[in-house]
Amino acid sequence: MTKKIAVLPGDGIGPEVVAEAVKVLERLRRGFGLKIEMETAPVGGTAYDMHKHPLPDATLKLAKQADAVLLGAVGGTQWDTLPRELRPEKALLGLRAELKLFANLRPAILYPQLASASTLKPEVVAGLDLLIVRELTGDIYFGEPRGVRTLANGERQGFNTMVYSEHEVERVARVAFEAARKRHKKLCSVEKANVLETSGLWREVVLRVAKDYPDIELSHMYVDNAAMQLVRAPKQFDVIVTGNIFGDILSDEAAMLTGSIGMLPSASLDSANKGMYEPIHGSAPDIAGKGVANPLATILSAAMMLRYTLNEPRLADKIEQAVSKVLDQGLRTGDIHTVGTQKAGTKEMGDAVAAAL
Amino acid sequence: MTKKIAVLPGDGIGPEVVAEAVKVLERLRRGFGLKIEMETAPVGGTAYDMHKHPLPDATLKLAKQADAVLLGAVGGTQWDTLPRELRPEKALLGLRAELKLFANLRPAILYPQLASASTLKPEVVAGLDLLIVRELTGDIYFGEPRGVRTLANGERQGFNTMVYSEHEVERVARVAFEAARKRHKKLCSVEKANVLETSGLWREVVLRVAKDYPDIELSHMYVDNAAMQLVRAPKQFDVIVTGNIFGDILSDEAAMLTGSIGMLPSASLDSANKGMYEPIHGSAPDIAGKGVANPLATILSAAMMLRYTLNEPRLADKIEQAVSKVLDQGLRTGDIHTVGTQKAGTKEMGDAVAAAL
Ligand SMILES: CC(C)[C@H](C(=O)O)[C@@H](O)C(=O)O
Ligand SMILES: CC(C)[C@H](C(=O)O)[C@@H](O)C(=O)O
Repeated sequence: MTKKIAVLPGDGIGPEVVAEAVKVLERLRRGFGLKIEMETAPVGGTAYDMHKHPLPDATLKLAKQADAVLLGAVGGTQWDTLPRELRPEKALLGLRAELKLFANLRPAILYPQLASASTLKPEVVAGLDLLIVRELTGDIYFGEPRGVRTLANGERQGFNTMVYSEHEVERVARVAFEAARKRHKKLCSVEKANVLETSGLWREVVLRVAKDYPDIELSHMYVDNAAMQLVRAPKQFDVIVTGNIFGDILSDEAAMLTGSIGMLPSASLDSANKGMYEPIHGSAPDIAGKGVANPLATILSAAMMLRYTLNEPRLADKIEQAVSKVLDQGLRTGDIHTVGTQKAGTKEMGDAVAAAL
Repeated sequence: MTKKIAVLPGDGIGPEVVAEAVKVLERLRRGFGLKIEMETAPVGGTAYDMHKHPLPDATLKLAKQADAVLLGAVGGTQWDTLPRELRPEKALLGLRAELKLFANLRPAILYPQLASASTLKPEVVAGLDLLIVRELTGDIYFGEPRGVRTLANGERQGFNTMVYSEHEVERVARVAFEAARKRHKKLCSVEKANVLETSGLWREVVLRVAKDYPDIELSHMYVDNAAMQLVRAPKQFDVIVTGNIFGDILSDEAAMLTGSIGMLPSASLDSANKGMYEPIHGSAPDIAGKGVANPLATILSAAMMLRYTLNEPRLADKIEQAVSKVLDQGLRTGDIHTVGTQKAGTKEMGDAVAAAL
């Protein structure tokens, strides 16, 4: 059966990097029997400019009908002054909520070819391969009540609600335990149970789910300590599971440990493994349109899509091997370029990966 | 006038490291005309064991009457199973709230003598000297409502409230702007205004306060990006101001950049610069009682006390210079020991600093 992929290039460098991932998928379709059809729709600031909304109905409908979504990036300074409800980020939050993508998988992998890009000492990060499973549809991102109220004394007060129900913790914990089972069988649950009741419940539920995974070594860590340990000894981690806001912070920190944000993909999955796939980097307006952005994170996001949603692990491997081959060849976009390697543009990089398949 | 210092050694290595800081203060009292009197009281698990409460009334009373509080550390596994209200951490939160210590100053300084201790490359962290000003009495730490409720379907749900009023943001922002003025005149305010209304109000208030500080270069950064930038290029920061929970995470990350947690002091101040001073490291139960803990963070906390509360900047400098001299001499406790330096115990280190005054 032909699978449907919604392609949402978005803003900034989004369209450029997505074009290269589409090129690679197209190559797999023509040459390796991958049964997909792709349809493109606007999202983010680009969509706002066209339709006065960052997530137009037609785009949401397409995303809902599709088996998987491939997203570039959203955002740009020209939309920063819009009301919160109309900003590009809102499209991202809307897609996550509407598609019920509660499990965000963010690997932080250090490619041996790019080891020197990290700001950490080689011995600390060599071979780094950790996976952060971030809850993505709950927590303070979506919790009610929220807003700004005026107190009796005329002073204003901002408020947001951190909230987790048992089933929300349970389902994301299961995703994390399952992921750990396919990796090195170690899971670290991160929260702030020494201060927050929400975290106390989180820990309780994780401990309960753990009974179904006696083969997984479970540990618990406070979020402040986790932020430290990621800097001190990141290789102690295999899989980390955490809530939406802590995951937002820790996954960016973990990504930066590799020094190569332009290389890191992500997957956001629902309970049926339908998913949205996107590079973890942003829309980088400063280099948009110049043809210099690194398309590898988006290409690797397409690989994750093949693995998690399209059930084509062999083709996923193929893409990842092709990326590795291209790095071995010495090809580098500006963000990962070092002396002795060969500078390549966005298109060149995509072509090289397609050729290496 | 003689100033009163409440000395709260606490748990684990707390008593050992505090003893050395007291030794240094005592030396200043006898030899350099520092007018202080010190009184000791139990806090944390130790206090719970004696009085069935981690923050006994007498301890709180002493802390309130004192001009400054010198705290060691609290916590230990034997108290982890107590109800939240009786755990050692609760004493810390209680002291912060009762003493209205809303501004937590946490410097992250890389001592040139200890440059190799960092897991980051030397060129990334050499000369690092940043200050995090963390709001300490508001936010999700103290926000109401909070708890665990049972939903109509029988499922439980944990909830906490992130909340900031204008005056809370304003007063901590002022502390941060003032601190920046005494340093390199750069302030970065960290929040998550693209998602949270509380952060939106935070940013608004910081922008308003900034009008009184036209000489300070102000920037705003989302917390996930800040977690990244601290790893990528920490020297871009001078002073960071942020809320309680984001500050908890970022200040631990920043501290670990130096690789020498045993070196870093902190101050928690009220609106009259009365303060509580403590090392940022914890109670380290694993090495407690062995006489090997690093007392320098606590000694440097005493220096901060002299500077911020006791108005003795000259004596504060004196302590800091003495610490630097001892490092120059090659003395190192186990946590910062490297080949070619001389291993010293807690007492030896304290004696050396006292002698170097
Ligand atoms: C853009 C923003 C709303 C988003 C988030 O906070 O989730 C981003 O930081 C991310 O991690 O995908
Ligand atoms: C022990 C804990 C309650 C405390 C906090 O979260 O504030 C600690 O992590 C700190 O940073 O002082």
